[in-house]
Amino acid sequence: MSDQKAQIGVVGLAVMGKNLALNIESRGFTVGVYNRSRSRTDEMMRDHSDKKLIPSYTVEEFVNSLEKPRRILMMVKAGKPTDAVIEELLPLLDKGDVLIDGGNTNFHDTMARNAKLDESGINFIGMGVSGGELGALQGPSLMPGGQKEAYDLVEPILTQIAAKAEDGKPCVSYIGPNGAGHYVKMVHNGIEYGDEELIDESYNIMRNVLGLSVDEMADIFAEWNKGELDSYLVEITADILTRKDDLGEDKSKPIVDMILDRGANKGTGKWSSETALDGGAPQSVITEAVYARYISMLKDERVAASKVLPEDVEKPTVSEDQKKELVEKVREALYFGKVMSYAQGFEQMRIDSERYDWNLKFGELAQIWREGCIIRAQFLQKITDAFEKNPELKNLLLDDYFKDIAKKYQKATREVVSMAINAGIPVPSLAAAINYYDSYRAEVLPANLLQAQRDYFGAHTYERVDRPGNFHYSWYVEQ
Amino acid sequence: MSDQKAQIGVVGLAVMGKNLALNIESRGFTVGVYNRSRSRTDEMMRDHSDKKLIPSYTVEEFVNSLEKPRRILMMVKAGKPTDAVIEELLPLLDKGDVLIDGGNTNFHDTMARNAKLDESGINFIGMGVSGGELGALQGPSLMPGGQKEAYDLVEPILTQIAAKAEDGKPCVSYIGPNGAGHYVKMVHNGIEYGDEELIDESYNIMRNVLGLSVDEMADIFAEWNKGELDSYLVEITADILTRKDDLGEDKSKPIVDMILDRGANKGTGKWSSETALDGGAPQSVITEAVYARYISMLKDERVAASKVLPEDVEKPTVSEDQKKELVEKVREALYFGKVMSYAQGFEQMRIDSERYDWNLKFGELAQIWREGCIIRAQFLQKITDAFEKNPELKNLLLDDYFKDIAKKYQKATREVVSMAINAGIPVPSLAAAINYYDSYRAEVLPANLLQAQRDYFGAHTYERVDRPGNFHYSWYVEQ
Repeated sequence: MSDQKAQIGVVGLAVMGKNLALNIESRGFTVGVYNRSRSRTDEMMRDHSDKKLIPSYTVEEFVNSLEKPRRILMMVKAGKPTDAVIEELLPLLDKGDVLIDGGNTNFHDTMARNAKLDESGINFIGMGVSGGELGALQGPSLMPGGQKEAYDLVEPILTQIAAKAEDGKPCVSYIGPNGAGHYVKMVHNGIEYGDEELIDESYNIMRNVLGLSVDEMADIFAEWNKGELDSYLVEITADILTRKDDLGEDKSKPIVDMILDRGANKGTGKWSSETALDGGAPQSVITEAVYARYISMLKDERVAASKVLPEDVEKPTVSEDQKKELVEKVREALYFGKVMSYAQGFEQMRIDSERYDWNLKFGELAQIWREGCIIRAQFLQKITDAFEKNPELKNLLLDDYFKDIAKKYQKATREVVSMAINAGIPVPSLAAAINYYDSYRAEVLPANLLQAQRDYFGAHTYERVDRPGNFHYSWYVEQ
Repeated sequence: MSDQKAQIGVVGLAVMGKNLALNIESRGFTVGVYNRSRSRTDEMMRDHSDKKLIPSYTVEEFVNSLEKPRRILMMVKAGKPTDAVIEELLPLLDKGDVLIDGGNTNFHDTMARNAKLDESGINFIGMGVSGGELGALQGPSLMPGGQKEAYDLVEPILTQIAAKAEDGKPCVSYIGPNGAGHYVKMVHNGIEYGDEELIDESYNIMRNVLGLSVDEMADIFAEWNKGELDSYLVEITADILTRKDDLGEDKSKPIVDMILDRGANKGTGKWSSETALDGGAPQSVITEAVYARYISMLKDERVAASKVLPEDVEKPTVSEDQKKELVEKVREALYFGKVMSYAQGFEQMRIDSERYDWNLKFGELAQIWREGCIIRAQFLQKITDAFEKNPELKNLLLDDYFKDIAKKYQKATREVVSMAINAGIPVPSLAAAINYYDSYRAEVLPANLLQAQRDYFGAHTYERVDRPGNFHYSWYVEQ
């Protein structure tokens, strides 16, 4: 073994870890690599023998192969496997070393680990990595949170491996202390759920209310991708709708028609909604997207219910002339829904940033999502612009650009949601979006009646419109 | 001190504990009472010197004042105070004694305490108590969960103190092992949030779309309370709307107009939604009710937003003739929404009953909610009937009674929700209700497109409609 040390080490050489290691190496760094089972390491060294990789077969060897202060990126399964790796490494590390968890970890766990390791003087970064396997290799969006001085030690590497936006800026920045990075990745995933559900509801309306074909919709999404909706998810939706079945007998059928409508999930959207509930953030668009996946999973129940539950609906008859007009209204509703979903997501981050004292930079977050990740979109620049104009912005809707979208597109949204509901086609996230808008701009909500009810049955007291304080009404005394 | 022993002891003599102790005593039992600070005990003995109460001023004295096996009802704050009391009592208890936690405890905590105490041979019951202060004194609805043999030891007391339904049955039954009782109380509270929000949205539509006065609405709710909607919450809503301000200058103003529209919460509705998200239960009506409270709390932001966010809506002009017809449609929508909310709540309980192996008896749950608790209503008998007809019922909507409600009232619901959305009046829970119905009865949902998207960007694989297995499409290969 040579005396040359690696500038960073990667533990865990499954596809994400391997691709990140290769990405780092490709930027001119020497990378130490280690995997619990030897075979993956051997395989990697065989396939990439020309690369500046230093393999190790024991943790001791691995730790000794790294420059000090050591920088170690863990790409292992979230939960117990992550704890196991930390426990193995910990006795071998020195004060000032930096451990990075690039897994799909719940931010509460990251907060706890950061605090615990800090006691031993070890820096701990929880880093959200978005962009999938290809992103890891070619340039992901990175969301690192932890000690600022630890971030400074890894910044030169992270800025090199991250995706680059159109203006050349790398899609990474320091997110904040302890769990902030994994938290922001979680909200990113929640927003992704919302984007997908809104696209899927738009598709369902066009297909089952307007009666469009899959080919027609492929063209429509491709067209939409040239305008305000320009985004990775709209782009791949257009592509998906052009694809034909590769397995069945009839290869001319659209592949979407052969795919079972059970929407799976890996839990991060759920975490995002649970966190919103816990923190008091009204995050209805994304939560409805999570529930939409849950209902979709009840396929057998739905098939049975579809045969017995009565339908009393009005499917509109849509002329060819009206079709084009209605498709444009669906587009406007989709964009309106997207604006509400992001307004809620950023409101959630504002609430939690205060709650956990993270001092999140909202404009920067939108900026590092512009490339590399699933929700990448032209639209994110508008969010960055809004927070650059006003870093104290309380809600995206109060920015002129988004206010203008709400002004122009609310009418179409109301119409499209009504049309779908009257036709019996579910639009849970689009409906949540317009209801959020109308709630947020409501000077008075019926919570006055709620407070009366709570005071009536539980003596919970109420506040008044004309003076400060908490009051209790003598409900049980006849007037 | 006499040698007579008490049949049950109550720890914690704040209003709920005191009232439950008095309720138990009134049924002929001798009750040991103990409070950490002496003053409450003294006060209680002074005010009720004629009652069969045995006061104690130390934990040792208290434990010695009870018959064996001891039955101890803790009415202290959830969380650390509950743990503190358990720790104090534990060394003094014998195997087979029964500890009951009647506080507002998270069921996860109850599961952990039940398991831990079980190791020492101590029985632990987590008991939901609904009905507020008055219910505690006169007859609450009780939801006890824990060891069945422990329940048998306290059943004679619980059946005496519980509320009695119209048919004379006590509103208590054995819910299930460990955390089942506190779990069911939590779902009860979630359902209560849903009921309140649906009533409040109906009020808001009548007031701000139909233009009805508070007096008119008082009459309408009173009328509704005579029919299918007969329930405690509709009854008190009617009463609330007749009440005038008791504090302001103008005593002729309705009190609701003096109450600030910030809807508070004590967390159990939130727990219910978090649990639904965690378990995969689509519980959108209640979750939207939780979020509605959160948005209402942002009063200052809403007032500011109401001045700048544009409105593009169509308020219908409603003639006197149409008013009556539309009020009936609002009533139908409210009942439809309520049915969906309970369908979701019972679906959530079915999912968690399997998950935690509780074997919940759904018909019995509806039965013990018929009196004593906040959601008490005529309607609950229909749920009991449905599960008596078919204990394996997968979803309330598949029962004939509820199917028929869905058949008759869905049209009005679609119309009312559309009308409100077009008029700019938020209806998040009513919209969630109709969207749930249309999702649940949908043979095909657009989750096929979702699965294509997930397979495209993350290689998450998809299932097919024509064969079993998981497949991956070669999206990156041009066709």
